[in-house]
Amino acid sequence: MSFSNKIAIGAGVAAPILVLAADPAAAAVSAETRYVLNTFSFLVHGFLVMWMAAGFAMLESGLVRTKNTATICLKNIALYSVAGLLYYAIGYSLMYVDVDQVIGSFSLLYNPSDAELALLNAEEATDELVAPVVENGYAVMSDWFFQMVFVATAASIVSGTLAERIKVWPFLIFVVVLTAVIYPIQGAWTWGGGWLSQLGFSDFAGSTIVHSVGGWAALTGAIILGARRGKYGPGGRVNPMPGANLPLATLGTFILWFGWFGFNGGSQLALGSAADATAMAIVYVNTNLGAAAGVVAAMALSQAIYKKIDLTMTLNGAIAGLVSITAGPDLQNHLLAIVIGGVGGCLVVVAVPLLDKLKIDDVVGAIPAHLVAGIWGTLAVAIFGGGDLVAQITGIVAIGAFVSLASAVLWLALKATMGIRVSAEHEDLGLDMAELGMEAYPEFGRGSRAI
Amino acid sequence: MSFSNKIAIGAGVAAPILVLAADPAAAAVSAETRYVLNTFSFLVHGFLVMWMAAGFAMLESGLVRTKNTATICLKNIALYSVAGLLYYAIGYSLMYVDVDQVIGSFSLLYNPSDAELALLNAEEATDELVAPVVENGYAVMSDWFFQMVFVATAASIVSGTLAERIKVWPFLIFVVVLTAVIYPIQGAWTWGGGWLSQLGFSDFAGSTIVHSVGGWAALTGAIILGARRGKYGPGGRVNPMPGANLPLATLGTFILWFGWFGFNGGSQLALGSAADATAMAIVYVNTNLGAAAGVVAAMALSQAIYKKIDLTMTLNGAIAGLVSITAGPDLQNHLLAIVIGGVGGCLVVVAVPLLDKLKIDDVVGAIPAHLVAGIWGTLAVAIFGGGDLVAQITGIVAIGAFVSLASAVLWLALKATMGIRVSAEHEDLGLDMAELGMEAYPEFGRGSRAI
Amino acid sequence: MSFSNKIAIGAGVAAPILVLAADPAAAAVSAETRYVLNTFSFLVHGFLVMWMAAGFAMLESGLVRTKNTATICLKNIALYSVAGLLYYAIGYSLMYVDVDQVIGSFSLLYNPSDAELALLNAEEATDELVAPVVENGYAVMSDWFFQMVFVATAASIVSGTLAERIKVWPFLIFVVVLTAVIYPIQGAWTWGGGWLSQLGFSDFAGSTIVHSVGGWAALTGAIILGARRGKYGPGGRVNPMPGANLPLATLGTFILWFGWFGFNGGSQLALGSAADATAMAIVYVNTNLGAAAGVVAAMALSQAIYKKIDLTMTLNGAIAGLVSITAGPDLQNHLLAIVIGGVGGCLVVVAVPLLDKLKIDDVVGAIPAHLVAGIWGTLAVAIFGGGDLVAQITGIVAIGAFVSLASAVLWLALKATMGIRVSAEHEDLGLDMAELGMEAYPEFGRGSRAI
Repeated sequence: MSFSNKIAIGAGVAAPILVLAADPAAAAVSAETRYVLNTFSFLVHGFLVMWMAAGFAMLESGLVRTKNTATICLKNIALYSVAGLLYYAIGYSLMYVDVDQVIGSFSLLYNPSDAELALLNAEEATDELVAPVVENGYAVMSDWFFQMVFVATAASIVSGTLAERIKVWPFLIFVVVLTAVIYPIQGAWTWGGGWLSQLGFSDFAGSTIVHSVGGWAALTGAIILGARRGKYGPGGRVNPMPGANLPLATLGTFILWFGWFGFNGGSQLALGSAADATAMAIVYVNTNLGAAAGVVAAMALSQAIYKKIDLTMTLNGAIAGLVSITAGPDLQNHLLAIVIGGVGGCLVVVAVPLLDKLKIDDVVGAIPAHLVAGIWGTLAVAIFGGGDLVAQITGIVAIGAFVSLASAVLWLALKATMGIRVSAEHEDLGLDMAELGMEAYPEFGRGSRAI
Repeated sequence: MSFSNKIAIGAGVAAPILVLAADPAAAAVSAETRYVLNTFSFLVHGFLVMWMAAGFAMLESGLVRTKNTATICLKNIALYSVAGLLYYAIGYSLMYVDVDQVIGSFSLLYNPSDAELALLNAEEATDELVAPVVENGYAVMSDWFFQMVFVATAASIVSGTLAERIKVWPFLIFVVVLTAVIYPIQGAWTWGGGWLSQLGFSDFAGSTIVHSVGGWAALTGAIILGARRGKYGPGGRVNPMPGANLPLATLGTFILWFGWFGFNGGSQLALGSAADATAMAIVYVNTNLGAAAGVVAAMALSQAIYKKIDLTMTLNGAIAGLVSITAGPDLQNHLLAIVIGGVGGCLVVVAVPLLDKLKIDDVVGAIPAHLVAGIWGTLAVAIFGGGDLVAQITGIVAIGAFVSLASAVLWLALKATMGIRVSAEHEDLGLDMAELGMEAYPEFGRGSRAI
Repeated sequence: MSFSNKIAIGAGVAAPILVLAADPAAAAVSAETRYVLNTFSFLVHGFLVMWMAAGFAMLESGLVRTKNTATICLKNIALYSVAGLLYYAIGYSLMYVDVDQVIGSFSLLYNPSDAELALLNAEEATDELVAPVVENGYAVMSDWFFQMVFVATAASIVSGTLAERIKVWPFLIFVVVLTAVIYPIQGAWTWGGGWLSQLGFSDFAGSTIVHSVGGWAALTGAIILGARRGKYGPGGRVNPMPGANLPLATLGTFILWFGWFGFNGGSQLALGSAADATAMAIVYVNTNLGAAAGVVAAMALSQAIYKKIDLTMTLNGAIAGLVSITAGPDLQNHLLAIVIGGVGGCLVVVAVPLLDKLKIDDVVGAIPAHLVAGIWGTLAVAIFGGGDLVAQITGIVAIGAFVSLASAVLWLALKATMGIRVSAEHEDLGLDMAELGMEAYPEFGRGSRAI
């Protein structure tokens, strides 16, 4: 038993003794309180996940070169906006409303329920008006908000891999389709109650459904788009193109870690009972331990292999630890979270040079951190968490195949029509001057117009 | 109906079935629970709004030139501090305590209620002690905290517009008066229950009462202070003075967006019932959609007009979308939030060059984003939300006239006494070396002492 | 009485009238609701404190020179990770489990309680399963999470002082021992219910137990490690080595301030009653006022002494104000918070040059802000808050002696074995190239490989 006497000192009031009332019903959470708590959990955890959009923006801003920094900032705020609008217009309904095995409803827009509107527009909140609202368990739009920030996360992953050579508008059109159609359809299979959930596929907060989906879309795009000019030299030489601002990349990683408590914690989907609150605490702890293990593993392995600690690898180790634990952060033995996150951190150190060997140019390391670790985390649910290995593999393969295929078709269509890659001149000049006509840091460093 | 089966997979416990107890009272939120939830809502949403102070600091740091960056950092942390101290000393009481149509109480300091102190200092929390506390609906100081971060927001808006040429101490004296007197008096008219609220003026979270107030104070200051040296050349030429660090400006915008869930969501002022939680979820969604629409509208319009996407304009589009939806984020049709935010984003693109034509030098674009969009959002409540147009216009004009007049008197008094503008030599040298004797980035770029 | 009518306008529903039910039990917070609220408070406030790790990373990144920036980023994410792993493995049990006056249990790892696991793994949440869980007052792991982020804070403080010359791995080994053993043992004395708590030593959220502990470890390290090369010249000359990125330092300070609402607010340790919620609101307000007063005091004093406002001093003034109020943020007279924080801000301005006179090289000013202000804040509890002065002094001295001695032994052992300081060549080159083989800002400024 833990013992903490801060309260007696702090509050100046005798700590209330927790007694259960004689009547068990009086000791329980009332239905309306539960509704409020569940709703508030979606909102609080939702704003944390929304904040991850800033994390991706900073991580990517720090890992590109100065001449492409303003563009990556623009793309990140734009993709978050586009994702939110499209998920409102189409995506959410496709994913969650009346899902029939593989797809939900094509209804446009998504709004509060009639019962909610009746309550809000009444003079008085009578029991008759409150009851049907409360019965849903949470406010309808709070769930929308929480799910929306997830689709934005998937879109954010794509942005970093393709940085420094993709055109802005075609990229945003890809985001439109990804968030309106591709992500929601595969999401319906599991979280919408479709065929994968019935098969027993288990992905608590989205190692596969969010992170690998972003990773597959990014990988397909990287292959079709090609590497940055000069990245891969003759004879297998890989030219380093170091990120321009590592403190920003570090900040971005911390933001992601912070936001991940919302990502995983909120995916408990409820807070209104002792069981839910207890489970949520476990999720928080596993999330933190997985990330911490990813950091230490990536540091140690990069020291062992390269005789230096690589900061970028370490940051991606944190992310990989987080992605790895995302499929099963409800594991009740916390030691397993350390194992799972640590393996995730090692996978990054192994996968980054492997991608370079394949000449797949992933500017920020998103494919190792989100796709590879996402697959690992989803398998780990079967290995350590009692999940069904066949169901897990089926989910990984089915979602991977669908997203890769759909993304490839879309990338190729964009390439054939408006083109997806800037000209060689524009790439050398940098996207900031070419596409935006401005510089991210006009007074710093070389070649800036201010000097 | 949305369907989500994450919980059954996640929690490992059968999802609790939400049944309403036979006795409706047992199903409702108890008075003490409601008190706790309302209080916690003020604290959580309050810390989000406090975080907006960092957002303004980063936005403005990114949009000024390097030689004035340390000064803008200093001004932002100082103004937040000054605002908090003065709102504690005088402001809150003037705005909320015993408001008599136009002004509240002149009592100094603001402290917990006697009932609260009696409860906290008791040996045991008896029903007799709890009841009078709970009756207030929320902890007295939680409301103070939430209102305090709003006044700080108004002060933050002024700082950006006047950057790069105003002296530090006179600026802070302006903040003293703004947060102790000017803001509270006009706030009393509506949120304190004064004459504007009785007229039916409606401003949910402060498009006018916070954002336009900051905007009017900034506009008055910009006119009296004059433009930066060299900003406007002969023949109507406008010399660009690009911001030195656009990733920081992007970060600042993301912080503001994140914090705005507190700004608008917390302005529901209660969380302790199904109706409040439902309304709060709607507010979150509208806030996000308004901002997203502002981004997309500003991007599209700047592309159409200038054939380039302007990142700064896009960031201000997000802010304008947020400001626009702030007067009516409780609209029950989310499509309207998209319309309102989108118009806000367009207004920025139009208003920025217009100010330049008038030779009003607004360094960060705060006047378009906060004042113009604030007026629009307040009108939109009447246009789309059923508010009274006459009341809305009355509120906009009355608050605008009062704040502009009071600010002008104050700026002119400061100008006549201690002076508000640094010397031409100091302006050319930069405020950092002139007023602080230090550089923000001593090792970067041109002219730094480190090179 | 404060009056706010936002709700009537906003929600569109008549504001629920708060009536206490005839039956007092029905008006109170149920035991299960209290459990949920207490747990959620630990999680929300815990994530805020976790975010302080990013604050330290940014503060320190901004205050070191560019050539050591990537290393300080690495150390900050690594120390947070190491602290979490070790506090899980050993530290928490030593501090909180079965504490016998001076030390807790040596049991390894820390996991959910049997009662919690029984509830989570049941088919249905029966009263018999819920009751023993709820009796604990909060989810076991939520408390772990909240306490873990505190130990990480103590470790973060050490990192900044020793920047720019310490080797990475020995530093991390120090963090291992600090977070696994040193911090937990002294923490057990008070928060674990040991001898200091029985003596009446009072430290609400850790002015001494967290901040001074970090400060003593840093001070001991600074003395043993020695100053940076060239910092102190002949004749008492102090060579300024200005921080490379002051906006980042400002951001870091804002993050710390933001996170401190979790640090102090969460240390109420409960949210599930009117008394707790009321007390928590008071804590938030004092925290903010203490920081604000620290800022204004540091600004004014640095203006008076140096005729310039020093930004770095001002930022440390905020931190000192926060540290000062941390021992007693539950004071019921808010004016005292202003006094306590203001004195803290002044102490920074005095202590920084004093350390330089003693040739103790504290790169970021952590010793004045955390150690000196921590001692002051702990004394202030006796001076203003009714605490026992002898108990306070006993706590300060006992903890200071223990931590200094243990740290000194550890630093000397590390120095004798693997060495703690980089070579003079590596120090001149910068730790980033020497230890990491990379640069934080490869395209900016002088001497970078990109130019």
